[in-house]
Amino acid sequence: MKFSPLLGELISALTCLPGVGNKSAQRMAFHLLERNRDGAMKLGTVLHNAMEHIQHCQQCRTFTEDEVCEICRSPKRQEAGVLCIVESPQDVLAIEQTLSFGGTYFVLMGHLSPIDGIGPADIGLTELETRLKQEPVSEVILATNPTVEGEATAHYIAQMCNSLDITASRIAHGVPVGGELEYIDGSTLTHAFSGRRKL
Amino acid sequence: MKFSPLLGELISALTCLPGVGNKSAQRMAFHLLERNRDGAMKLGTVLHNAMEHIQHCQQCRTFTEDEVCEICRSPKRQEAGVLCIVESPQDVLAIEQTLSFGGTYFVLMGHLSPIDGIGPADIGLTELETRLKQEPVSEVILATNPTVEGEATAHYIAQMCNSLDITASRIAHGVPVGGELEYIDGSTLTHAFSGRRKL
Repeated sequence: MKFSPLLGELISALTCLPGVGNKSAQRMAFHLLERNRDGAMKLGTVLHNAMEHIQHCQQCRTFTEDEVCEICRSPKRQEAGVLCIVESPQDVLAIEQTLSFGGTYFVLMGHLSPIDGIGPADIGLTELETRLKQEPVSEVILATNPTVEGEATAHYIAQMCNSLDITASRIAHGVPVGGELEYIDGSTLTHAFSGRRKL
Repeated sequence: MKFSPLLGELISALTCLPGVGNKSAQRMAFHLLERNRDGAMKLGTVLHNAMEHIQHCQQCRTFTEDEVCEICRSPKRQEAGVLCIVESPQDVLAIEQTLSFGGTYFVLMGHLSPIDGIGPADIGLTELETRLKQEPVSEVILATNPTVEGEATAHYIAQMCNSLDITASRIAHGVPVGGELEYIDGSTLTHAFSGRRKL
């Protein structure tokens, strides 16, 4: 027996979610049909709305349904003159949750990766350059991931900043708070030593 | 920072899926926005369609968008005169995949559970009784789960069948094929011994 056509369609549509295979999709479909039809209807409506209206912020490229996102609109944040470069909107959220950064962001939506054909234009570096030339940015904080591609991207942007006479800084690499030296990998420890600070 | 309102709404709507908490919902939302907007739009449409049109089959209570499901419509299956009682539509699927059963089904959509206030009427036993009186059913196979509630439900239906002079049989409990005796629990082994067959 196959499922009834519409049920089969629902199950296969649910597999578009990341980490959801055929078996989980079946479980989800039956759960929604048996216990949460209202929630499923709402999800359907919100999915439509979100996919239609959520676009990239024209200034920082994060996801928003407005033309310019809330952070970019805040005059207080623009006055700070500090621009933080991150790879994804999730990174913005992680940094915002610390409450320790009061500047604006620029979201690359990826990183330089020549092997996948992703060059500077694909991660918005043309827009970034225009922005750095127009806005009174005093410092650029490079908060890309500490991976090979993230480091390469940070270096590329740092050179761009240098040529425009803007200070570029990289977030510190080192031992995470609460970590134990015994279990930290060698590369991180090396970074922690070379980045040591006077007390 | 909170997410933009619509993004927040999307994330909270996604948590209606079973096994999806806030963090997984975030991951799903960003994945759909970044990589699969078409899939998400399709999912939205299918969710609406499915929740509106998928109902219970009027005869066997499984999920279907038709009034009567494909299995119940098949004259060949009705002629077999064997009715299999299961707890959920997923069980129908599991049995159909074995290709070893050629009769019709009745889906309880649950099991008797007085402690949760689920009585005979809630699992469709009134409809089942009417059906057993009207249709020429020669045997009822009780394929509820081998749990306390499943066994109780099976017993209840068996008594109903007896009072209507219809043979009721219970699927066999025993050692699963491919299993090793060493690792089988005592209760299953006891069932396997008491249900032994002459070779």
